Amino acid sequence: MSVDPLPPAPAVALPTPPPVDLEGPLAAAVAAAWAAKTKPPGSLGMLETLGLQLALIQDRSVPRIAAAEVRVFAADHGVVAEGVSPYPQAVTAQMVANFLAGGAAISVLARHADAALRVIDAGVAADLPAHPHLLDRKIASGTANFAEGPAMSVQQRDAALAAGVAIGRGLAPQTALVLGEMGIGNTTSAAAIMAALTGLPPAACVGRGTGLDEAGVARKAGVVARALAVNRLNAGGAVAQGHAGGVPDSAPTVDALGVLAAVGGYEIAMMVGAMIGAASARAVVIVDGFIATAAAAIALAFEPALRPYLVFAHASAEAPHARWLALLGVRPLLSLDLRLGEGSGAILALPLLRAACALLAEMATFESAGVADRI
Amino acid sequence: MSVDPLPPAPAVALPTPPPVDLEGPLAAAVAAAWAAKTKPPGSLGMLETLGLQLALIQDRSVPRIAAAEVRVFAADHGVVAEGVSPYPQAVTAQMVANFLAGGAAISVLARHADAALRVIDAGVAADLPAHPHLLDRKIASGTANFAEGPAMSVQQRDAALAAGVAIGRGLAPQTALVLGEMGIGNTTSAAAIMAALTGLPPAACVGRGTGLDEAGVARKAGVVARALAVNRLNAGGAVAQGHAGGVPDSAPTVDALGVLAAVGGYEIAMMVGAMIGAASARAVVIVDGFIATAAAAIALAFEPALRPYLVFAHASAEAPHARWLALLGVRPLLSLDLRLGEGSGAILALPLLRAACALLAEMATFESAGVADRI
Repeated sequence: MSVDPLPPAPAVALPTPPPVDLEGPLAAAVAAAWAAKTKPPGSLGMLETLGLQLALIQDRSVPRIAAAEVRVFAADHGVVAEGVSPYPQAVTAQMVANFLAGGAAISVLARHADAALRVIDAGVAADLPAHPHLLDRKIASGTANFAEGPAMSVQQRDAALAAGVAIGRGLAPQTALVLGEMGIGNTTSAAAIMAALTGLPPAACVGRGTGLDEAGVARKAGVVARALAVNRLNAGGAVAQGHAGGVPDSAPTVDALGVLAAVGGYEIAMMVGAMIGAASARAVVIVDGFIATAAAAIALAFEPALRPYLVFAHASAEAPHARWLALLGVRPLLSLDLRLGEGSGAILALPLLRAACALLAEMATFESAGVADRI
Repeated sequence: MSVDPLPPAPAVALPTPPPVDLEGPLAAAVAAAWAAKTKPPGSLGMLETLGLQLALIQDRSVPRIAAAEVRVFAADHGVVAEGVSPYPQAVTAQMVANFLAGGAAISVLARHADAALRVIDAGVAADLPAHPHLLDRKIASGTANFAEGPAMSVQQRDAALAAGVAIGRGLAPQTALVLGEMGIGNTTSAAAIMAALTGLPPAACVGRGTGLDEAGVARKAGVVARALAVNRLNAGGAVAQGHAGGVPDSAPTVDALGVLAAVGGYEIAMMVGAMIGAASARAVVIVDGFIATAAAAIALAFEPALRPYLVFAHASAEAPHARWLALLGVRPLLSLDLRLGEGSGAILALPLLRAACALLAEMATFESAGVADRI
């Protein structure tokens, strides 16, 4: 990959999510609807916030989850050559087969949640047999080892973004998009993204992933440090002059898309696109754990209008995740010590979205139920 | 009520939950089953713990939730005469009608969770019209004002316990019992129970309830302090010599059943019985918020064998609740700022129990799926 200056914006045209007015008449109507329900004011806590968010996303006072669509993006990572995972790279393709056969955690959870599951080959380093629930969007057979240079070219990044946008934009408006991922090595990619975007030292951004010991975690932090140096990424996401991805004139201080090309993965890039695409179709996006948060952080850095469309499902047991959520100003719905990925945490939050909609739609009011309000 | 010494044990015979062996062959079998699943070890976090707990409760390696039964216990509280709630007492009966008509939060949530809802009149201060989903177990038309003396007699307490036991014991073994309550004034009762059992000062045990202002919370703390003094309850639950409820020779330091008669409520007493009854039938009990925790704390104080049968659903926004859970050594599943009662938090946790069962039953193993295990 060249270090010549590159075009400031991605070649792909990214849609803009419709603006959401937190202070407008729809927000006021939903607040009034909650206040009239037979319960003390505010006593449904985060479900009331969630109901308001869904109403604003769907632009209707009584939101609903008409369908839930799970999209698991799978890709391989050249950085596994650095020994950052206790599992062999072949597991990515094997787990894709497991997703499709119905035996993985996300397969079981999607089935019981009445959600459709589709797997997207964003860049698995194996030829995957065709399957009606597998979408072939392979950009390449895994990224390059980002400890030695950029993970992908800008063209590859933009192709991944465009494929993701198309997947998200194709969703019906009252759909919940449940985002998951699979890719041996991808906690290292997410950690490098976190370090580049937040400016925190690599050691604060790495966790045990699928089960590294302490020495493995230290090695992983070293790999992230090397990746930042090799890719000329400074703390806080400032991209050194001349780096692939460039720094567009109009951009905020962080060149998130440059970071994505440098140390990202194809599944992460495609999730970024899917978030933007889904939001542009007024679909709520349920963000899973550490890897999905990496995609969300990149997307939010260049498209702040995405923010009201995201529901952060859970705080992962992957050590840096809770801190990253806090830095993003996010309070996740669940905290169950999950660290599996696949969208498992996201789909466990889905019943809460459905509950918020049901309560807003079906609860009686003080007046309709003949219940006395406060003295 | 007399202050003569009373029989040390309740007149009602309470069943004993079957013992649960956390170190036995069943526990080992479940741990092995989780370890063989296609996921990094431990990566399903609290769901793995929950699956194990349900297996031990049901005494089978593959647990299931065959049915979910919501039981909402309703009763009135004489202490409302002290001005401890912003809502009039009539709301208890009005909300019972709302539960049965399908318009309350718990009605909506039960319906969408495929759970049966039954309301128990444990002591509502009104004649309730008959309804096929209403059980008449009224002990009295509300408790006496416990700021002036005991809330109920020992005989009334024991009748409430017995009614609760019968309701719990009648459940089929693979049922989840979702416990809820309704009773204007019952956060004051729960606060008094907390103060008596934990020894914390009243101010640390009261919250805003359905919406008191700061002055109201201070008044409520004063009412709790008066209730403890009038009923001769010392900090830490030691009941002063000769108090109704007595201190049985064999009892631990806390006379929880004495506390229950002194400052409890009929819905709380009946929930205590229902927990014990359900556990004796090997049914898991999902404990809701602050009031249900008061019942659980009493039940656990005199029947420690109940412990493995309880799942604590959520940490309430009622200020003292999180602290009480911590004192009980409990980590709740959810923390969503709810403070509604009715079993609303408990039923929101139900999908997590179902998910744990489904994962344990249906996930593939590394061997069956042909996925490579760790290097």
